[in-house]
Amino acid sequence: MELQEVLRMNGGEGDTSYAKNSAYNQLVLAKVKPVLEQCVRELLRANLPNINKCIKVADLGCASGPNTLLTVRDIVQSIDKVGQEKKNELERPTIQIFLNDLFPNDFNSVFKLLPSFYRKLEKENGRKIGSCLIGAMPGSFYSRLFPEESMHFLHSCYCLQWLSQVPSGLVTESGISTNKGSIYSSKASRLPVQKAYLDQFTKDFTTFLRIHSEELFSHGRMLLTCICKGVELDARNAIDLLEMAINDLVVEGHLEEEKLDSFNLPVYIPSAEEVKCIVEEEGSFEILYLETFKVLYDAGFSIDDEHIKAEYVASSVRAVYEPILASHFGEAIIPDIFHRFAKHAAKVLPLGKGFYNNLIISLAKKPEKSDV
Amino acid sequence: MELQEVLRMNGGEGDTSYAKNSAYNQLVLAKVKPVLEQCVRELLRANLPNINKCIKVADLGCASGPNTLLTVRDIVQSIDKVGQEKKNELERPTIQIFLNDLFPNDFNSVFKLLPSFYRKLEKENGRKIGSCLIGAMPGSFYSRLFPEESMHFLHSCYCLQWLSQVPSGLVTESGISTNKGSIYSSKASRLPVQKAYLDQFTKDFTTFLRIHSEELFSHGRMLLTCICKGVELDARNAIDLLEMAINDLVVEGHLEEEKLDSFNLPVYIPSAEEVKCIVEEEGSFEILYLETFKVLYDAGFSIDDEHIKAEYVASSVRAVYEPILASHFGEAIIPDIFHRFAKHAAKVLPLGKGFYNNLIISLAKKPEKSDV
Repeated sequence: MELQEVLRMNGGEGDTSYAKNSAYNQLVLAKVKPVLEQCVRELLRANLPNINKCIKVADLGCASGPNTLLTVRDIVQSIDKVGQEKKNELERPTIQIFLNDLFPNDFNSVFKLLPSFYRKLEKENGRKIGSCLIGAMPGSFYSRLFPEESMHFLHSCYCLQWLSQVPSGLVTESGISTNKGSIYSSKASRLPVQKAYLDQFTKDFTTFLRIHSEELFSHGRMLLTCICKGVELDARNAIDLLEMAINDLVVEGHLEEEKLDSFNLPVYIPSAEEVKCIVEEEGSFEILYLETFKVLYDAGFSIDDEHIKAEYVASSVRAVYEPILASHFGEAIIPDIFHRFAKHAAKVLPLGKGFYNNLIISLAKKPEKSDV
Repeated sequence: MELQEVLRMNGGEGDTSYAKNSAYNQLVLAKVKPVLEQCVRELLRANLPNINKCIKVADLGCASGPNTLLTVRDIVQSIDKVGQEKKNELERPTIQIFLNDLFPNDFNSVFKLLPSFYRKLEKENGRKIGSCLIGAMPGSFYSRLFPEESMHFLHSCYCLQWLSQVPSGLVTESGISTNKGSIYSSKASRLPVQKAYLDQFTKDFTTFLRIHSEELFSHGRMLLTCICKGVELDARNAIDLLEMAINDLVVEGHLEEEKLDSFNLPVYIPSAEEVKCIVEEEGSFEILYLETFKVLYDAGFSIDDEHIKAEYVASSVRAVYEPILASHFGEAIIPDIFHRFAKHAAKVLPLGKGFYNNLIISLAKKPEKSDV
């Protein structure tokens, strides 16, 4: 079965669900909002086809749970706020928003939230019911999702680190792992591993830019937020902690070494420079804005107890990685992995070393030669 | 909670799911297909905006299970077949198809079928992956689903009998039911009940026509198939059998009479004449084609045993009505209702009296005054 038919966050609304364990991502969304507003401001000034009647937007990699509609709310609020700044705004444009994620994503749980979400938009934003139309377009964002030249704005937050597949070349023809003891490509990985991962990211991100540039109108906008490499050598991101936890289980004899060696996450954390180069190399977009920022895993967490904090961070990471870990290691061992993850997090958090570096990049589709 | 937040078919793929119990509907789809093809033929001749690049289609009331993608396959095949008839077809247009149903519908189970469905389309129809884009637009089809003048073709099969609400006026101010012993409006119902139901249907269907005409381009097409009244006085449709089964439980003392009297299905089965009048009265559409046909409940059922046939029919009806029955009568009594339903069906089927009358109506949106 292909990755796109298996990969998902923990669905539903249970204790380990992504819905119940994604407060961290809300902090990132809050950082993105001012940049989102500015991006929308520029978009509405660019006078794209039909944009005064209906703005067509998509959120690529929307997942499920409250964050999904938080992103939608931020987009709608930005459009309405900027719209009001325009004196001559006749009537608010309709907004058609497509939520995209892979086929196994729990869209049902998001759709059930829509009636109350629409009522809230009407009450708080004065947006008539029927003037914001939220649907879904399931599929991999590395493939075509929308018709050519049909979209005004594409948004994506915390998705681009997911590759379309595990890079090839991490297992030799005779079945020997070239990435022993590791589950992805970190600064400590051997060069061939780092190259295999960077090659896959370059290929995927280039495909992503090309395909979605074809879907956008000329001057259409794309706002991407993703995890990126930082400069700190001793910082530990969540995947480093995950790697350490799985290694513990091997050392303790609860897990065969071969099982760890044969597992590689389809995840790559690029540097800001790598992202910039690929955008420039691919050529469809102009970079309007680029910013990096840090968010501590336990930011905003009110209880000042390291162990509870560590458990909280462990459950956030579990909600994201459990499905793909379970598909390789089985369900039973998942609690053990995250019990040990919490132990490592408890040591790292007090030193302020537990954080993600983030990158926001705002892009505008260069006009087609024919449009110039 | 509003009806649109509760009403759905039985989701999932279990024994009582709509997915496992909707073979009957496939027979109806087979009858619709030639009319669908002709409708698409006319559509592609009508030269609507952008139709050679991307045809925008929606299936209103798509439910879940295999029929959902059967309908999509029929639509795609019709478009491709008619496209090939056109000598000058440069390149196949992209097809963007929106599946619509109420918010609680089990869209997840349909989305999981998409990867293999796309592969099958590529293999059997030569349709490149990415040239048919299937998404969802959840919500009531009695409200706005798509931006103004953005759709080419709207399809709906076996949905219009569902009203937006139970008609008002079926319970007097002092709480007395005016529809005692009945769960909907049949030929045997008292005139005030028949009027209340017809008024609600007229209001809903008029709203349906107005809203979706605004979403269609001028000359856009709408193809509707629904259950309709027949001329036979002694025929029993599924809801009549359901009504008889629930009455049995009251007579046997397993159900309080008041519980039956306070239950009314939000379902109205119109006559062909009523549908025709409302379309003409509302005025947005021209009627291009209208046909009625019968389908026996046990049509195509291979086992020649009346009791097994009756059980088969009972499970098809249960898959459709269980959620709404359970929300009023509770889950526990559902098996008892359909056990008695099967008994009644076993008497009716051998007489050839167990069937639905069906109506297909093909509509074209009259050009806007500005377009003439």
